[in-house]
Amino acid sequence: MADGVDSLMYDLGAGKSAIREVFEQTMELKQQGVTDFWDYSIGNPNVPVAPQVTEAIREALEDYESVDLHGYPPNNGYLTTRQAVAANLNRRFDAHARAGEIAMTAGCAGAISSTIAATTRAGEEVIIPTPYYAEYRMWVQAWHCNVVEVPTQSETFQLDIDAIEEAINPKTRMVIINTPNNPTGAVYTKDSIIALAALLRRKSKELGQTIYLLSDEPYREIVYDGKQNPWVAAYYENTIVCYSWSKSLSLAGERVGYVWVPGTVRHAERVYDAILGAQRVTATVMNSLFNRVLEKCVDLPAPVEEYARKRDLLYGGLTDIGYDVVHPDGAFYLWVRALEPDDDAFQARAANEQRLYVVGSRDFACRSYFRLSYCVSDECIKTSLPAFRRLFESYGGYAW
Amino acid sequence: MADGVDSLMYDLGAGKSAIREVFEQTMELKQQGVTDFWDYSIGNPNVPVAPQVTEAIREALEDYESVDLHGYPPNNGYLTTRQAVAANLNRRFDAHARAGEIAMTAGCAGAISSTIAATTRAGEEVIIPTPYYAEYRMWVQAWHCNVVEVPTQSETFQLDIDAIEEAINPKTRMVIINTPNNPTGAVYTKDSIIALAALLRRKSKELGQTIYLLSDEPYREIVYDGKQNPWVAAYYENTIVCYSWSKSLSLAGERVGYVWVPGTVRHAERVYDAILGAQRVTATVMNSLFNRVLEKCVDLPAPVEEYARKRDLLYGGLTDIGYDVVHPDGAFYLWVRALEPDDDAFQARAANEQRLYVVGSRDFACRSYFRLSYCVSDECIKTSLPAFRRLFESYGGYAW
Repeated sequence: MADGVDSLMYDLGAGKSAIREVFEQTMELKQQGVTDFWDYSIGNPNVPVAPQVTEAIREALEDYESVDLHGYPPNNGYLTTRQAVAANLNRRFDAHARAGEIAMTAGCAGAISSTIAATTRAGEEVIIPTPYYAEYRMWVQAWHCNVVEVPTQSETFQLDIDAIEEAINPKTRMVIINTPNNPTGAVYTKDSIIALAALLRRKSKELGQTIYLLSDEPYREIVYDGKQNPWVAAYYENTIVCYSWSKSLSLAGERVGYVWVPGTVRHAERVYDAILGAQRVTATVMNSLFNRVLEKCVDLPAPVEEYARKRDLLYGGLTDIGYDVVHPDGAFYLWVRALEPDDDAFQARAANEQRLYVVGSRDFACRSYFRLSYCVSDECIKTSLPAFRRLFESYGGYAW
Repeated sequence: MADGVDSLMYDLGAGKSAIREVFEQTMELKQQGVTDFWDYSIGNPNVPVAPQVTEAIREALEDYESVDLHGYPPNNGYLTTRQAVAANLNRRFDAHARAGEIAMTAGCAGAISSTIAATTRAGEEVIIPTPYYAEYRMWVQAWHCNVVEVPTQSETFQLDIDAIEEAINPKTRMVIINTPNNPTGAVYTKDSIIALAALLRRKSKELGQTIYLLSDEPYREIVYDGKQNPWVAAYYENTIVCYSWSKSLSLAGERVGYVWVPGTVRHAERVYDAILGAQRVTATVMNSLFNRVLEKCVDLPAPVEEYARKRDLLYGGLTDIGYDVVHPDGAFYLWVRALEPDDDAFQARAANEQRLYVVGSRDFACRSYFRLSYCVSDECIKTSLPAFRRLFESYGGYAW
C-alpha cells in the first residue's frame, strides 16, 4: 500500500472493470477516428431521448427563474417530483407509494450505494444471484460487508430458491435481485418471487432479524413478447426499490433515479432517514435541473419495440451461425456461451481478430460466457454478423 | 439501534444540520405562501445564472445527438471538459495542471468525500480549523476517521499555525482548509499558507508520512476589495484542490465540480486512481449534460461586485445597529456574535420573534455566533434591518 493511498478505494474502484476497460478502448478508437469496429460493451442506450425530455429541459429553462432552477433542491428531491413518481407507481402497480417514501438519487448507483450503506453493518452478508452486475460487489464491500454469490439455475438463469436458502445465515442482511436481469436478460417468474418472499419472511422470523430485498429495476419497462416483469414489492414487505431512468429514457449519463422505501418495510421511516443520511454522506443527491425535467417525464414509455427488434435481429443472427445464446425476455443484453472456456481470452481474441468488442463473463462472477449489449444501431448488428461468423469459424465452433 | 438500520449513516446524516433545518423551515413557509420572513440560512446563490450558461445548455441540446449528450461520459468526465478546466487553472494560476490530473465530480461534496475516502485509512485523523462547514465532519467520519478541531485566531479567524502544529501526531493524515472561509468570510493570508506549508512539509518528513492539504475552494473567486486569495497549491506540493461552480456560477443544485491532484502530490497517479475508485464506489460522478455545458463556461467570471454590494449593505446595517460582525474579505457569509451565549436559543428567538432565519454556530463547531448567508436580494437585506434592530433592542444589546 502506498503511503497515504487507501487500499480499499484503490482496490475496489481503481482497477477497471472488464466493461469499462472495453468501453474505454472503444472510446479511444472513436477519438482516433477509427470506425470499422463493433462496440457491444456497455449499456449506453442508443435509442434517441424522447423529444418530450428535451422539451422539458427547454421548458424548465423558460419557466423557472435561473436561481430557482439551478439552486439547491431538498436532498430528497422536490416534493412535486416525488409526487409524480408516487402517482406513476400507484397508477401502474397499485403500489400505495407516498411521496414521503421516495428519494430522488444520482441514478440507481446512488440509490443502491446509499441503501446498502444505510441498512447494513460491517461484517454482514449480502446474497446476490450470479451472474450479476459487477458494481454490486463494490457497493457492498465499500461498507465492509461481504457478497455471498449464489448461482442461478443453469440454462434458464432463474432464481434457485433452494440455493438461496442454503446461503442464508445469521449474518445475512440483504438479498439483491435484478429483473429483467443484466447480463442474462432473464425475467424472473412471479412464482419465483413469491417463493423468495416466503423464504425471506420465514428466515427473517427464524433469525429474528429483517432480511431486506433490494430490487434493482433499471430495466423494469424493457420486457418483450407481452411477458410481465413481477412487481417485486407486492410480494415481499421488506422490499426496497431502486430505479433509474438511464435505460427507459436513455438518460444513462445524467444519473437520475430514485429509491422507494415502502411503508411496509420494518422501521420504514428510520430506513428512509438512514438512506437520506447516506446520500448526504456519499454526496449522491440528484441534480436540480433533472428533478424538474423528470417531474414532467415520469410517464413516458420506454422504447421496448426498438429493443425487441434489435434483440430479434442479433439473437436470430447469432443462433443461425451456431452460437449458444440465452433467449432474453427483457433488458438489452445477450448472454452467450464463449467459444472457449477462458472468457478473458475469448474477449481479447474477438477484439483483436474481428474488432468485436464484447465483455467476458468474469466481471459477472461467472466464467465461459460473454455479454453483448445490443443497445446499438441495427446497422451495427447487421454488419457485425459476418465478423461473428468469421470468429465462430476460426474457432471451428464450440470445441469444448 | 433498530434492527437492520445502520447506526453510522443514520447518526451521520439523518440528524438534520442546523442549516438544513432552517432551510426546510423556510421552504415550508414558502410553500404555504408566507412571504414576510427573512431567510439568511443557506448558501443558495441568488445572483442569476449567467445567460451564457443557459445558452450553453440550449446549444448542447442542439449540437449533440441526444444519445451522445445524455449517455455515459467517462467517469472522470469528458477529456475536452477537463482540458478546459486545466487551461483555466494554467492561465490564471500558472498551475501546470494537466487534464489527466483532473476529475469532474458531483460538486465539491463529491470531490471532498471521494478525496477523503481515497486518501485516509480507518483511525487516522483529519485536522480542521474551527469554525468550519459542518459537512466536513460527516465526510471524515463516514470513512471511520476522526476530526481534530483546531481553533483559528480569535477576532481575525486566521489560521493558528502553532495550534495546528500541536495537533499533528502520527495519526494525522490530512488538513482541510477553506479560503475564503465559510462561515467567517476570512481570506487566509499568503504568509499563513506559506507557514502552514512549511509546517506540513516538516511534519511529513519527521513522521515519515504524507500529510495532505485538502483545499476546498468553492468561494475562490468571491473575494472583495482587491484582496487576493492565495493559490494554495503553489505553496504546498501535497495539496489536493476541490472546486465547485455552485457559488461562482450560481449552480448549487446541479452538483458540478472537480478535484485536481497536481503532479507534485506524492504518488499522484495512485491518489488520482483511488479518487476515481472512490467516485465509482460512492456514485459521485458528474452528470453528462453539465460536462458539456461547463466545457464552454469555465472562464465565466463570478458575480463578485454583486456580493460585495450586499456585504456592504448588510455589514453596514448591522454594525450601525450595534452588532459585533466579522468583516468578511470573501465568500458571502457574515459571522456575527450572538446576543446571548446560547446560539441555539438565539437562533430560535430570532425566528420566532422576528422571523429572521439565521443559523446558530453549533454546526460550525463553535458557540455563541450566528451565520448570515447574504446571497439574498438587496430588498431582503434592506427590509430585514428593522427586524434586526428590534431583536437587538429586545435583548438590550450584548448583555454578556
